[in-house]
Amino acid sequence: METIAPGVWRLRLGEPEEYTPVSMKQVEIDEDRIARLPDPGMAPFARGEVGFKVTPRGCVVELPLHPAERIYGFGLQLKSVDHTGRRRQLRVNSDPITDTGDSHAPVPFYISTAGYGIFVDTARYAIFNCGTHSRVPPSSAGDALTGEPAGAPVGGLPAGRGSFKSMIVEIPVARGVDIYIFGGPGMREAVQRYVLFSGGGCLPPYWGLGVWYRAYGKANSDDIARLAREIRESGIPCDVFGLEPGWQSHAYSCSFVWDKERFPAPDQLVQDLTRMGFKINLWEHVFTHPSSPIYDQLKQYAGEYEVWGGLVPDLSLDGAREVFGGYHKKEFVDKGVKGFKLDECDSSDFNRDSWSFPTCSEFPSGLDGEQMHSLLGILYQETIMSVFRKNNIRTYSQVRSSHALAACLPFVLYSDLYDHRDFIRGVVNMGFSGLLWAPEVRQCDSAEDLIRRIQTVVFSPQALVNAWLIPHPPWMQYDTEVQEICRRFFELRMSLLPYLYSSFARYHFEGVPPFRALVMDYPGDGNVYGIDDEYMMGDSILVAPMVAGQDVRQVYLPQGNWYSFWTGEKFQGGKTHRICSSLDTMPVFVREGALLPIARPVRYITPDTRFEVTVRAHGQDCRDTLLFEDDGFTFRFENGEYNIVRLGLSSDGRLQVERSGYYRDARYIITGLDRVM
Amino acid sequence: METIAPGVWRLRLGEPEEYTPVSMKQVEIDEDRIARLPDPGMAPFARGEVGFKVTPRGCVVELPLHPAERIYGFGLQLKSVDHTGRRRQLRVNSDPITDTGDSHAPVPFYISTAGYGIFVDTARYAIFNCGTHSRVPPSSAGDALTGEPAGAPVGGLPAGRGSFKSMIVEIPVARGVDIYIFGGPGMREAVQRYVLFSGGGCLPPYWGLGVWYRAYGKANSDDIARLAREIRESGIPCDVFGLEPGWQSHAYSCSFVWDKERFPAPDQLVQDLTRMGFKINLWEHVFTHPSSPIYDQLKQYAGEYEVWGGLVPDLSLDGAREVFGGYHKKEFVDKGVKGFKLDECDSSDFNRDSWSFPTCSEFPSGLDGEQMHSLLGILYQETIMSVFRKNNIRTYSQVRSSHALAACLPFVLYSDLYDHRDFIRGVVNMGFSGLLWAPEVRQCDSAEDLIRRIQTVVFSPQALVNAWLIPHPPWMQYDTEVQEICRRFFELRMSLLPYLYSSFARYHFEGVPPFRALVMDYPGDGNVYGIDDEYMMGDSILVAPMVAGQDVRQVYLPQGNWYSFWTGEKFQGGKTHRICSSLDTMPVFVREGALLPIARPVRYITPDTRFEVTVRAHGQDCRDTLLFEDDGFTFRFENGEYNIVRLGLSSDGRLQVERSGYYRDARYIITGLDRVM
Repeated sequence: METIAPGVWRLRLGEPEEYTPVSMKQVEIDEDRIARLPDPGMAPFARGEVGFKVTPRGCVVELPLHPAERIYGFGLQLKSVDHTGRRRQLRVNSDPITDTGDSHAPVPFYISTAGYGIFVDTARYAIFNCGTHSRVPPSSAGDALTGEPAGAPVGGLPAGRGSFKSMIVEIPVARGVDIYIFGGPGMREAVQRYVLFSGGGCLPPYWGLGVWYRAYGKANSDDIARLAREIRESGIPCDVFGLEPGWQSHAYSCSFVWDKERFPAPDQLVQDLTRMGFKINLWEHVFTHPSSPIYDQLKQYAGEYEVWGGLVPDLSLDGAREVFGGYHKKEFVDKGVKGFKLDECDSSDFNRDSWSFPTCSEFPSGLDGEQMHSLLGILYQETIMSVFRKNNIRTYSQVRSSHALAACLPFVLYSDLYDHRDFIRGVVNMGFSGLLWAPEVRQCDSAEDLIRRIQTVVFSPQALVNAWLIPHPPWMQYDTEVQEICRRFFELRMSLLPYLYSSFARYHFEGVPPFRALVMDYPGDGNVYGIDDEYMMGDSILVAPMVAGQDVRQVYLPQGNWYSFWTGEKFQGGKTHRICSSLDTMPVFVREGALLPIARPVRYITPDTRFEVTVRAHGQDCRDTLLFEDDGFTFRFENGEYNIVRLGLSSDGRLQVERSGYYRDARYIITGLDRVM
Repeated sequence: METIAPGVWRLRLGEPEEYTPVSMKQVEIDEDRIARLPDPGMAPFARGEVGFKVTPRGCVVELPLHPAERIYGFGLQLKSVDHTGRRRQLRVNSDPITDTGDSHAPVPFYISTAGYGIFVDTARYAIFNCGTHSRVPPSSAGDALTGEPAGAPVGGLPAGRGSFKSMIVEIPVARGVDIYIFGGPGMREAVQRYVLFSGGGCLPPYWGLGVWYRAYGKANSDDIARLAREIRESGIPCDVFGLEPGWQSHAYSCSFVWDKERFPAPDQLVQDLTRMGFKINLWEHVFTHPSSPIYDQLKQYAGEYEVWGGLVPDLSLDGAREVFGGYHKKEFVDKGVKGFKLDECDSSDFNRDSWSFPTCSEFPSGLDGEQMHSLLGILYQETIMSVFRKNNIRTYSQVRSSHALAACLPFVLYSDLYDHRDFIRGVVNMGFSGLLWAPEVRQCDSAEDLIRRIQTVVFSPQALVNAWLIPHPPWMQYDTEVQEICRRFFELRMSLLPYLYSSFARYHFEGVPPFRALVMDYPGDGNVYGIDDEYMMGDSILVAPMVAGQDVRQVYLPQGNWYSFWTGEKFQGGKTHRICSSLDTMPVFVREGALLPIARPVRYITPDTRFEVTVRAHGQDCRDTLLFEDDGFTFRFENGEYNIVRLGLSSDGRLQVERSGYYRDARYIITGLDRVM
């Protein structure tokens, strides 16, 4: 076992394939930051405890699993949180309607409550049998992967009938594979190591954490301008304005050219909206229509099959990236576009129209269709990301497919599915794999449904309203009382921006996911193992969203005291509470000891935005809290141009603010202290 | 291309695998009968039109597809009938809840409206892209499988953008494959060739077509005896009495031993029930519990992983078959058991508990888990079948998984799913692949649901009521009027037995599926291509079941005149009719020219059963109809001990009955003629 970084070990089994997430990776491992994590101790198991064999189907890795261990991860899983005792096949799929492992963003990485993570470096549709199978006990004809007698326990795990259920990973096609083992000591540290191994979590531009609005798909330039004015006049906060397929002259596949009739002066529109404080986001997918100016150049880099009559560029090739990225720079990013929505880069086994290229496709790089399905989302994100890097402006964008080692990519996943509970489960799950996910709000069945969904999205990585199917914002269908509640939640989002942005900074520097399952913070508490509808946002806030039809729900609060975000009421942890909530609130709790910064809401972010922050102190003995501050728009923070603002309470209960760093401005003006006891 | 039989060609591509449906096949091709089918003409395409390549993932076959062709088949598909433009991956799955190709009985065989069938001889989870993908047009970097320029049409198919969508078959793992091409001239003849290639359709014992009842899972010996008496006293016809898992001392996995407490005298019970005219069917699965008497003997033949703590015997090995089959002969078949319900021989990707062995399993024969999943149902059926063959008695049994070339196996598929429309779709689809399927009735939401489901099952290969979850027959929950309707439908089933049995004889001798989609009889009628809720039962009856909530439905009747089965009312074909139907009838139509034998219903079949048959003549110019007659219980018909009873109308409209053959008894007493005009 080779040590890659402190607490990160690589086990090379057989002959790994040429194209894997690690071999294709564009970003360096953040070794220094990994080294700063707590001592992981020994690797969770030794080489001799890992079974490996090559078969006609591919290869098989067998890893020890203790009966008490619980297994989490595998990317954006919408149907399950705890995968123990289940089989997962990690196929990229646009409509993962079943609980099989299919996902917009399947990630061959799992984390155990025993305090380690395993990353199987493959772009294949690997199968993980998470403690589903027992070997026939000794004296049988079975052969043990490890060379030990069949049925023998691996790694000193308890023996006996039925108790030996290991993790059996089957990797199709490959004759070998690299396994990366991420040490703890806890689950969260294992995830941190994985995120830092991925290059650290992304830091969105400040505006990315504001409110997003995606406009009606059929809107023309005038409609867009009108909508933008209406939003500004309504006073509802909005930072990002997204255009859906209608902006293009041909969308399925994509021309990447403005439709001249509907958008006669697109550059002017982008400038006008930008002047109004909006950041423009353009919908697209990668499949390139013959009418596109880049079609001929891309053809040499394309796979052999079309999708919707368009090319599938092989973005693993520099040439393809240059053509595709270069065009996006010149035509869009240089002209002020701040982000993209990268649609359809997954594929479909579950849709009636089985779109996208077949798994048997061949690409000029040598990638096949299966590998390309797994990696297309990553390659696409990297291509677009490189354009923004060249211009030294950050983006926060959307993507419909991702995979391993994606933490550093500032793209948020979304889905055409729409079950609210599934969407909440996505928020719970995403942190395990260093992914970001938006439980977006589209049209709703009722005012209640709308408000409950807005609540969830406000407490998510991306406060996104996607109104692509309706001409006006969804809240405009309801009375002013409903509109008022919606507005207050969007304003709440803006109030939480300093807290959220600082949580993302921690994601970037330390690898702690800003949104995560309770089990990641409380791995020793068996009560949280199965919770799929509560999650942590940052270090201090526990969110338990409600869905339409609920006016009461059970909320388990882990050990320690908690305070209602709304009333300040104190709740004892270590037990389950029955929480009633009318539509104007929802179950949100703050951990005792938290100093929570609450900003006066702004409508949108500019380079000059300053936040007037009140600090809420929860209980006695508050911990110091760090706020992160930089220009919020560029990559200069990577060169140290940022400040850490330390908030603390003095022994006599007064707020202390201490600013250090190399950013020459201040983004936070601390205006006061509220005590919550 | 090698000619295997008239109109059956084999194309060997690369190096096929050792274990395939054909290589494992126990039954001979029925060449003589294939030779009697109409001249198929030329093969539908030439070798040069078929693309083939080996890839790291396996191999890929590309076959021509005309834009006008429609594709059917792929086994027991419950979600779709017409697969054109869809991707199908043929994975064995116990809960095929999505429209992806997953199935209890996936069969790598498809039929085209162009009048040919293609069988891909593989036990792998092959992917069929049925005209889903276009190649990038010429001048691109794509490489054509056929060696022609990329994007060029194959086989003289029309060229042009987007029009060239071939059938792309990807076979995992294999470095080659045999493709069998079944000529027509029509779709139905292609299916007939496939069925005869499979050994001909099965001929059930006469009683198998009677009414089936499966008893409450927790019933003990006394409960069973009481239930049996109740059924006989009720007068409702019933031939088969099935026992669910509770009969075994250990059921998950199976001991194959009677539970001594609940069944202190099982042999006596079997005798008693047999004397009452019941044929006993025992539930089981193949996974063998350590407490089973055959466990130790089977251990050497088992796969390395347990299922529910039991062995997975490798039934491809003679030794395993002998142990497993020998025990079943001695303990059950010799003692009067007439059939089995072979449960759980599929596997689960969709269930929460991911049971069954992993795809990476190794079996002593060399089969791997994927191949074994595909073939386990077939191997299990063959093992059980061999026992009945040894005793020279026919069985009609149940099985939850099947695969290719299964037509000769008298096992009917069933599912734990329960959507009535899906169940009807199963009846429509099964004929394409030479399978049998029971849309079984379990507990129901309402009397309406119960009756509508009984109607469907009465017009299906197996009139099965599975009451394993409820102590009494489901109709006992409702009033006598409902019970009366149920009884009348079961009696109708018994009236149709001569017709049904003779339809199965045609399946056996000529390969014509007794239940089939309209497109198989009317391939030239585009109106029937998408119909997934009407089917033919035999040559003369069109069934259009209704589901709860419907009191009217659209029924498309193909060209020609049709008569209501109930009223004799005449309907014009070639158009869609709006049919109202109260619960005591359902839309069933008889083709003009049919001489339909209707028997006086008996309650159950004995070796001495004689049917009093009235013949219904539909319209003028009736075609001769053949009835098949033999002992109904043994395999002697295979040696010619059967009669053909030819029914015809003389020129002056009198019924003519002509009997020929070597069976020395008569099973049908023709008692009269009804004219329906």
